[in-house]
Amino acid sequence: MIYFNSDYLEGAHPSIMKRLMETNMAQSVGYSEDEYCAAAREKIKAACEAPDADVHFLVGGTQTNTTVIASILRPYQGVIAPTTGHINCHETGAIESTGHKVLALPTDNGKITAQQIEEYYLWHHTSPDFEHIVMPGMVYISYPTEGGTIYSKAELTAIYETCQRCGLPLYIDGARMGYGLMSDECDLTLPELARLCDVFYIGGTKVGALFGEAVVVMNPALKKDFRFFMKQRGGMLAKGRLLGIQFDTLFTDDLYLKISRHAIDIAHQIREIFVSAGYPLLFDSPTNQQYPIMPDSELAEIGKNFGYEYWERVDETHSGVRFCASWATTQENVDALREAVNNLKK
Amino acid sequence: MIYFNSDYLEGAHPSIMKRLMETNMAQSVGYSEDEYCAAAREKIKAACEAPDADVHFLVGGTQTNTTVIASILRPYQGVIAPTTGHINCHETGAIESTGHKVLALPTDNGKITAQQIEEYYLWHHTSPDFEHIVMPGMVYISYPTEGGTIYSKAELTAIYETCQRCGLPLYIDGARMGYGLMSDECDLTLPELARLCDVFYIGGTKVGALFGEAVVVMNPALKKDFRFFMKQRGGMLAKGRLLGIQFDTLFTDDLYLKISRHAIDIAHQIREIFVSAGYPLLFDSPTNQQYPIMPDSELAEIGKNFGYEYWERVDETHSGVRFCASWATTQENVDALREAVNNLKK
Amino acid sequence: MIYFNSDYLEGAHPSIMKRLMETNMAQSVGYSEDEYCAAAREKIKAACEAPDADVHFLVGGTQTNTTVIASILRPYQGVIAPTTGHINCHETGAIESTGHKVLALPTDNGKITAQQIEEYYLWHHTSPDFEHIVMPGMVYISYPTEGGTIYSKAELTAIYETCQRCGLPLYIDGARMGYGLMSDECDLTLPELARLCDVFYIGGTKVGALFGEAVVVMNPALKKDFRFFMKQRGGMLAKGRLLGIQFDTLFTDDLYLKISRHAIDIAHQIREIFVSAGYPLLFDSPTNQQYPIMPDSELAEIGKNFGYEYWERVDETHSGVRFCASWATTQENVDALREAVNNLKK
Amino acid sequence: MIYFNSDYLEGAHPSIMKRLMETNMAQSVGYSEDEYCAAAREKIKAACEAPDADVHFLVGGTQTNTTVIASILRPYQGVIAPTTGHINCHETGAIESTGHKVLALPTDNGKITAQQIEEYYLWHHTSPDFEHIVMPGMVYISYPTEGGTIYSKAELTAIYETCQRCGLPLYIDGARMGYGLMSDECDLTLPELARLCDVFYIGGTKVGALFGEAVVVMNPALKKDFRFFMKQRGGMLAKGRLLGIQFDTLFTDDLYLKISRHAIDIAHQIREIFVSAGYPLLFDSPTNQQYPIMPDSELAEIGKNFGYEYWERVDETHSGVRFCASWATTQENVDALREAVNNLKK
Repeated sequence: MIYFNSDYLEGAHPSIMKRLMETNMAQSVGYSEDEYCAAAREKIKAACEAPDADVHFLVGGTQTNTTVIASILRPYQGVIAPTTGHINCHETGAIESTGHKVLALPTDNGKITAQQIEEYYLWHHTSPDFEHIVMPGMVYISYPTEGGTIYSKAELTAIYETCQRCGLPLYIDGARMGYGLMSDECDLTLPELARLCDVFYIGGTKVGALFGEAVVVMNPALKKDFRFFMKQRGGMLAKGRLLGIQFDTLFTDDLYLKISRHAIDIAHQIREIFVSAGYPLLFDSPTNQQYPIMPDSELAEIGKNFGYEYWERVDETHSGVRFCASWATTQENVDALREAVNNLKK
Repeated sequence: MIYFNSDYLEGAHPSIMKRLMETNMAQSVGYSEDEYCAAAREKIKAACEAPDADVHFLVGGTQTNTTVIASILRPYQGVIAPTTGHINCHETGAIESTGHKVLALPTDNGKITAQQIEEYYLWHHTSPDFEHIVMPGMVYISYPTEGGTIYSKAELTAIYETCQRCGLPLYIDGARMGYGLMSDECDLTLPELARLCDVFYIGGTKVGALFGEAVVVMNPALKKDFRFFMKQRGGMLAKGRLLGIQFDTLFTDDLYLKISRHAIDIAHQIREIFVSAGYPLLFDSPTNQQYPIMPDSELAEIGKNFGYEYWERVDETHSGVRFCASWATTQENVDALREAVNNLKK
Repeated sequence: MIYFNSDYLEGAHPSIMKRLMETNMAQSVGYSEDEYCAAAREKIKAACEAPDADVHFLVGGTQTNTTVIASILRPYQGVIAPTTGHINCHETGAIESTGHKVLALPTDNGKITAQQIEEYYLWHHTSPDFEHIVMPGMVYISYPTEGGTIYSKAELTAIYETCQRCGLPLYIDGARMGYGLMSDECDLTLPELARLCDVFYIGGTKVGALFGEAVVVMNPALKKDFRFFMKQRGGMLAKGRLLGIQFDTLFTDDLYLKISRHAIDIAHQIREIFVSAGYPLLFDSPTNQQYPIMPDSELAEIGKNFGYEYWERVDETHSGVRFCASWATTQENVDALREAVNNLKK
Repeated sequence: MIYFNSDYLEGAHPSIMKRLMETNMAQSVGYSEDEYCAAAREKIKAACEAPDADVHFLVGGTQTNTTVIASILRPYQGVIAPTTGHINCHETGAIESTGHKVLALPTDNGKITAQQIEEYYLWHHTSPDFEHIVMPGMVYISYPTEGGTIYSKAELTAIYETCQRCGLPLYIDGARMGYGLMSDECDLTLPELARLCDVFYIGGTKVGALFGEAVVVMNPALKKDFRFFMKQRGGMLAKGRLLGIQFDTLFTDDLYLKISRHAIDIAHQIREIFVSAGYPLLFDSPTNQQYPIMPDSELAEIGKNFGYEYWERVDETHSGVRFCASWATTQENVDALREAVNNLKK
């Protein structure tokens, strides 16, 4: 069985494992106050060209989203997000568990627009009942989105200008950030992205690490007491150095971007396998997640040897599914997939 | 200025004020453990033909909704509701503040269907990611709805059967229950409604009381420790007798239903005023809230002497607005409205 | 049976009932945006000599405490309070339900000191683990306390100076404020008290109103969006005018203070009844609550005709109990109590 | 510099690192539904002689405590714990952030008694105001405690019998469980401990793992939907296999207990170093944490080369501090400590 279900099927990049082995018996203080974390913070700030940013390390995405959002909102405020946003769909109500409503805006492809944000803000702001309605307090988007799409520099600039005008901090969920930045379609650099939001995170779990997400707080107003939030939300890892070591490795010699590019190259092949076989795509994704629409019968056939993620029913006999490439996907596995898909058509 | 904005513009029915005056200097124990509350509970249970129900008194609607819903759901569960449901729109995120997501289902007229509930339940239940998605844990509907519409006996029966099959307690927000039960379109009695849900409340604030809502818990499984929830949520009134006295009065000699019927009679006139003047209606409401669609220019004119509630923009020059009748609306005021609307057309 | 259990045994002062009757059928807008509330706000601000304060009306004490505290604290902060504070003991965890720890400081008589606050603040602030410990974010005290005691001007001044130095907003729960201000021992005026804290509330429920508490926000930094908190916490009464009418009446011609003084005069008699009969006192209370320690056998005897509140066991055969005076206590009832206590000793 | 500050100074036991390396590039499904987790669950259940238990893997202690406690309590309930309990002191209010009060009982040495629990339960249960007071809903203890002490079989049996009689689920925080079970003073086996509570966790972070805690749910009533809680609280690790691999290793050939015993042997030496040098002990700990009381001047001297954890001030010139042994502490480091302490006395 070969799995393409997700981008967290394997362990960590060998360079990370090597560093973990080398440092294993060294002693260090806990809670990310060690030298490895300090070094990783410096490298991340350098990569973002953001010397004044605060960088914090958390273990997973849901924990990171909950911690960041709970640190920003006042109790009567909610977070604007696309309906497809991870916080709205796939975190078992973690945001609501901290008392906040997710204010979901419609989307076809995982993205929302500056105009949608502004209209929602104005609708609330001018409503005669506005005190009876959850106040929008920030905006959450993903880069890339859950559908694999990415915002252009123009789109993100428009969103951030709107957010600033409306007083809404912008938070970017970068669980798969590397796969967005290395996409052919991307016209943004990491420093540019960093300057077009108030806080974001660079995902490690899906891009080469065993686990770990690096929160980068750009807006000084959002920095205060963030570590209290981390501890309260169970996100302050005792052996924080594990996060430091991993991110230090990922941000040495551009490893993070290089392994992300590998996934994009593989994804291009996956896309081509399905497109050339005549399958339409659910989303037009330039990143590592590819979403062919296939007849259920052929899915059953391919499913005998290949894992994929079921996404949604398209009609009575067709489904949209997800095949993921990652930093770890081998050429051998893609070749096997190509052969299997081609065989379907014989 | 004559107000039709809402059904909570005046104080209380004179019979209630009389009883409050008569009992004012009597001593009684606090927190609704007094004899007035005991008597009111008995009368409400008799009116519902529900001798085994628990009856609790709270002060207002948001408080009641929050307390009931928080008492039913487990932390990872959400409440299914129409998008227009009061808990979804007009309670400043009170439900989310207790940690729960409102799972909003689309509606045109304020109502949802048994089929929608079942489909949502099944979608969650069969999702491969179901542990990552908020579990539906109960259903909230309003009777009448925020658009003035009501469920038929057949519709409510179907909903309740679905809820029972899916293990979802059904809660009915009856802020305006009297105006629903006394509607010409209503084919339900209060005892029938009581048996078609797990818990509901009978609204006093909008139907003759100074304030107060009576929660009727039909399902024994939902009764445990409800008073702890009331106290924790700030809903246990020190002088609870004020609630007992009011509901005792409302449920003596069918006062609650009689004054509700008065509002329906007035509402018929309001509807006829607008329909005969050629205005379409935003919702086809058989209850005390009427929603004409009017040109903005005419609204501005009528607004000089009459209060109404702005509901929503229909197009660039027209708006849907709300005119409410209540137990307190006078014939004189409706006559004045009729004259004013007729004058618009001259 | 004559009740001395509490100070919320009767309805409202007759002047309030009269005003409620007079205004009953007048129409007004909801949610405390009416003219009665506006007038009451002005009178309260005048009484506090605080023209720039914000005044909000809520229904009950638990609701008020929860709303104020939730509006001030950040999620990782707690509220310092005496162990005996109402929020720590008698609100079913309402504060914790909003996510905040009550940081309880020991007390013998219901009061805490400036020194205790400072020491706690410094202990947290200098702890090497401070990020792992709830940060004190504000201070809660009651005036009078739950034991009937009051802070002197010197004590309150010291507390407030400490709070300001430590950056801890000071909130005073004034559920029985009138009974404190009218105590012989009181050396504070209402305007002085107002200037010695950041926010406080003037209790109506226990001092002449049917219900209602008036929050006075002195510190401009705490004013923002307070009405959103009220709505979210179920504390925005639909017919808010009921609160406005009551507080307008209480703050006309010093009614609030006059009826408070009546309770103090009665309380002096209650105290003298027990002291002259040889009973020690649990707390040395100069306000409306009196706490004799009595043999259980005599309590059983007196309990046949008089209600009191059980407070705590003192030893195997004695208990401390509470007898309350209020604005409504009659001379006739105190005389009956005196006779009954005297009879115990025959 | 040699650190004795805590038991999470190093990485993981070499056997774990070896397994992580070996499995690194294998593919597996996420969220602890993989074969490694399945195997680890079986080994843990075997070690506990609890074939019907549920076993779940989480990342850290605060996360585990919050998730377990939030899964058990109803909103108006609190958790009984010693004042020194980790949840009461060192989790930045994580329990309160889920809405629950920690009901702290006094302790000298980190332990509470069956009698204390019963008295608290009865006090609440018989209070006339019991609806106004947080209801105790479960009991939290640590094994070993934060002071290094352990419950005897008789003590734990008495506690559990009391809990069962009072309807209070008993939860044991086993962050350092191995160090308790391997203590000379321990008269409990792991299967015995498992049967004397409703749910507990076996700590990995402090006993040989990189990170990870294994929750063992013994009481069937507490099993339902636990994974929803894990996901909502950010505790469902994407690459859950990392937890499975680690616990599988720890529970192969008794590794968990063997490395725990090593720490105890080292701790005996640490204790002897301080006792023979004449220092009194803050707690009489038979486990891996040792708490000498030392003059501040000598602490400053020792602190130049050795890390320790500051615990509490004893008097103006003396402090109680913590020196920890762990699975990783080397004989070489203890020898260096011995020499340094001996030098203090020269």
